[in-house]
Amino acid sequence: MKVIMDLCIIPIGVGVSVSEYVVACHDVLKKAGLESNLHAYGTNIEGEWDIVMDAVKKCHQKVHDMGAPRITTTIKMGTRTDRAQSMEDKIQSVIKKKGLDNPGKREISRDLV
Amino acid sequence: MKVIMDLCIIPIGVGVSVSEYVVACHDVLKKAGLESNLHAYGTNIEGEWDIVMDAVKKCHQKVHDMGAPRITTTIKMGTRTDRAQSMEDKIQSVIKKKGLDNPGKREISRDLV
Amino acid sequence: MKVIMDLCIIPIGVGVSVSEYVVACHDVLKKAGLESNLHAYGTNIEGEWDIVMDAVKKCHQKVHDMGAPRITTTIKMGTRTDRAQSMEDKIQSVIKKKGLDNPGKREISRDLV
Amino acid sequence: MKVIMDLCIIPIGVGVSVSEYVVACHDVLKKAGLESNLHAYGTNIEGEWDIVMDAVKKCHQKVHDMGAPRITTTIKMGTRTDRAQSMEDKIQSVIKKKGLDNPGKREISRDLV
Repeated sequence: MKVIMDLCIIPIGVGVSVSEYVVACHDVLKKAGLESNLHAYGTNIEGEWDIVMDAVKKCHQKVHDMGAPRITTTIKMGTRTDRAQSMEDKIQSVIKKKGLDNPGKREISRDLV
Repeated sequence: MKVIMDLCIIPIGVGVSVSEYVVACHDVLKKAGLESNLHAYGTNIEGEWDIVMDAVKKCHQKVHDMGAPRITTTIKMGTRTDRAQSMEDKIQSVIKKKGLDNPGKREISRDLV
Repeated sequence: MKVIMDLCIIPIGVGVSVSEYVVACHDVLKKAGLESNLHAYGTNIEGEWDIVMDAVKKCHQKVHDMGAPRITTTIKMGTRTDRAQSMEDKIQSVIKKKGLDNPGKREISRDLV
Repeated sequence: MKVIMDLCIIPIGVGVSVSEYVVACHDVLKKAGLESNLHAYGTNIEGEWDIVMDAVKKCHQKVHDMGAPRITTTIKMGTRTDRAQSMEDKIQSVIKKKGLDNPGKREISRDLV
């Protein structure tokens, strides 16, 4: 079962800056071989359910290991059985309906984050 | 690693009524031996990470098996390493600060859902 | 437009204990005349859209006033035009399908939080 | 009070495809003069609290007007009093720590969505 997830991990008890924890989680996702895209309030991930969930667990473990005594995480996640759909498909579906048509530019930004 | 989770599973493409899917998910959670408490916008669960996550996966599979072609789920979940804390602890912590003191009544409502 | 909301406000940068902020938010909701029910990972609220949203804003302002430099909030909220539905209706809808039938016990627990 | 929000509006009871509703909401946000960035599981928005919240309400009204009898929305939102921070700041904060340094490419992708 494939899942598309929006993951937002917030360490609590380590002050107001959380970006170093976000970076550490991105390393975890990368090592798991998962495609991920950072946005301003979380990270989109897609992959097989077990691999994604295992990576989420490793993120929690990593953030605790870095010193955070408490973590609160918000996840949105979608599965579907009617057809395969990637993160890029979801975005393209909206972009096409908006009359925009710039897949090349997305390609560039996807490499970045 | 213990987790306290708020789980809200929404089947898409099966009309506006979702309560039968909520009931089915509660059966899944019960079979998994997990303590859970229903509220008006989701279900609180507590347990070991792997057991909880396995139950969430089984909920998705069950809801798809019941005919939902698409599911969107929202999860909040917390882990902590500084001390053990149950769902009841979290609620009692607020109730005590509010000057309320009715553990007996909670006992009753906890049995219900 | 009526809304049923699940509200979870997390102050960041004030240590690991957040219950005093939850208590303060409950005071804000109560002063707004809103019905609310605390659970282990947030608070359910129902009411007219503008009144609920104004209360959420006042909660953020209150938590900042109490010293939190940063807040992250997760909200789930539902509106519907097909029929009126209260928080209690949602819970009863599930309880009835489960073959449970204990409205009196709910009455008790609703008073508590 | 400025807010950075991640907004995900799901119409229920209108089948599995929701992209036309996402497009309509983007029109609402644009008319409100709000900067927004689409991702694979929602839309990031930033702006003054009242303007953002008014736009969210208009999105719900629009999606109901388009025929959705029921909507469930998930919002993450952050406010802070310690310093000003934009959506782009949040992303750059992570990118810099990752040793990446491609503001130009972000510029391009920001124009797209």
